Amino acid sequence: MPRNIQIVTESELRALIGLDSDLVDLIERAFGALAEGHVVMPPVMSMDLADVHGEVDVKTAYIPGFDGFAIKVSPGFFKNPKLGLPSLNGLMVLLSSKTGLVEAVFLDNGYLTDLRTAAAGAVAARHLAPADVDTAGVIGTGVQARLQLQAAHLERPFRRALVWGRNADRAEECAGDIARSLDLPVETVATPGDLVARCQLVVTTTASKSPLVTRDMLHPGLHITAMGSDQAGKTEIAPDVVGSVEAYVCDSESQCARLGELRGAIASGAWSDRRPIELGELVQGTTKGRRDPADITLCDLTGTGAQDTAIACHVHATFANAGQSIPV
Amino acid sequence: MPRNIQIVTESELRALIGLDSDLVDLIERAFGALAEGHVVMPPVMSMDLADVHGEVDVKTAYIPGFDGFAIKVSPGFFKNPKLGLPSLNGLMVLLSSKTGLVEAVFLDNGYLTDLRTAAAGAVAARHLAPADVDTAGVIGTGVQARLQLQAAHLERPFRRALVWGRNADRAEECAGDIARSLDLPVETVATPGDLVARCQLVVTTTASKSPLVTRDMLHPGLHITAMGSDQAGKTEIAPDVVGSVEAYVCDSESQCARLGELRGAIASGAWSDRRPIELGELVQGTTKGRRDPADITLCDLTGTGAQDTAIACHVHATFANAGQSIPV
Repeated sequence: MPRNIQIVTESELRALIGLDSDLVDLIERAFGALAEGHVVMPPVMSMDLADVHGEVDVKTAYIPGFDGFAIKVSPGFFKNPKLGLPSLNGLMVLLSSKTGLVEAVFLDNGYLTDLRTAAAGAVAARHLAPADVDTAGVIGTGVQARLQLQAAHLERPFRRALVWGRNADRAEECAGDIARSLDLPVETVATPGDLVARCQLVVTTTASKSPLVTRDMLHPGLHITAMGSDQAGKTEIAPDVVGSVEAYVCDSESQCARLGELRGAIASGAWSDRRPIELGELVQGTTKGRRDPADITLCDLTGTGAQDTAIACHVHATFANAGQSIPV
Repeated sequence: MPRNIQIVTESELRALIGLDSDLVDLIERAFGALAEGHVVMPPVMSMDLADVHGEVDVKTAYIPGFDGFAIKVSPGFFKNPKLGLPSLNGLMVLLSSKTGLVEAVFLDNGYLTDLRTAAAGAVAARHLAPADVDTAGVIGTGVQARLQLQAAHLERPFRRALVWGRNADRAEECAGDIARSLDLPVETVATPGDLVARCQLVVTTTASKSPLVTRDMLHPGLHITAMGSDQAGKTEIAPDVVGSVEAYVCDSESQCARLGELRGAIASGAWSDRRPIELGELVQGTTKGRRDPADITLCDLTGTGAQDTAIACHVHATFANAGQSIPV
């Protein structure tokens, strides 16, 4: 029986889909499904290619009730910028949940990952940030620094924003971009501590290998989303912060214990043996995250295959006629 | 920097590439590299989707010296035939070894897997079968039954062949196909024992969950390639056969101990703690498999990401202008 496979390129995807509340709702639904426990999500397949300064992650998740499931390939080759090429690229393959047949290949170079990652930040803000956020801050100056503040603003329309980055020029550039996209005042600050002190909502978006947010910086009513750490060697949040906040919430317990901020907290003994809350439990309403406006909350995001499946299904269902249709 | 991704469909691949000695040489080279120990090959990523009678495997391997590496997605959905659809399909993604950028997507529906699997059988025959094979036999009646005998015939041009299958009609059909493709007499036989008794080279190609070849069937000068078992629940060869042959050789020790015939032999105690020989060691010449014409040898193939990488690189290098080139 002849059939067609949809092939959509990055530029086509950029024209079709952006970060909005519909996408956040969809990613929220994926987290809800994760918490229900019927999702089949194998551990991330990782290759470390030390010879060529490269790494590759493969993620997937089958979510009952979604028409398809994605298998995502994310390579990162860190000598590429010297060759004038991007470090990150990759694609998503969408398979039918009923037949396993390949339905679509999204040659997104990581664009869909950027969106679904930012949308998870919005879900975290929706369920954990204090009701009123005057000032939001971002630590880091990359693509996610921009997108995470855009995502947070959908949920908590803050009035000003702060940016900190190791490189002052890049921080200025990032602040300028955010000011333009959200049409509000954005400043850079001298230290992560200065930033945290003035914000009710902070997102950390770096590949740091040592903590940037320490316990002395915490103040009542603070929410932090830490989305930079997604590998055993990375950390942005001091272990005693993880151990001491009123609500520590993770996207996936098993992933965060291996790849996220929870890992360092367990290793250092700062994490007692209580069970962490998963973001999906807040979505389902089975557990409460923030119980009081003065609570300090932390959301640890490593990125799940469930998010990939959700966004890939969304693109396929909504833009069935996009890209090229290749008969196979 | 604009670049192109090559998209090649199954029908285009079938027109371009088949099973021949060049392909066997290439797959042999991949096994040699595996034995050298510099290959990065993470464990197979497996999803078991019991709700929909489906399973998905993802395999990959980075081989130094190859220009690219493949990530292969192999779904199997076993209710598909009732819908008039094939059980198996899937694709291979080829990434550059230097930059990690996606170079090609082969929408092969498993065709390249069929070829690289058969070619591994040829490599096994090359290094393990007795020098003169008069009669070769295959247990099973599927695509691999046909391809494995074709592969074995490249290395040991036997003069007649035998087929056994649970379903007599399918066995007749398979025997007819093999007779036509190899232009030699092919008979069906009533039992696996009848088949093994008359053959010097046997390939088992089934998804059996209980052994089909037992110790009482063995005779001097026999070589068996067992390629059906690739999951913990499957087995074609009795554990005491694995434990008693003069040379037990596997494609990958770590995979065969989890997914191949070695697993049952270890579990039953039939396997002592000696180290199994890997096929690549025979290719490299560091170990001998068959030492005497009367030896009984067994090769356990579970299918490796290294084979996928080898065939994907071959297709990309040899047929660079095939299929469609999509600008990204």
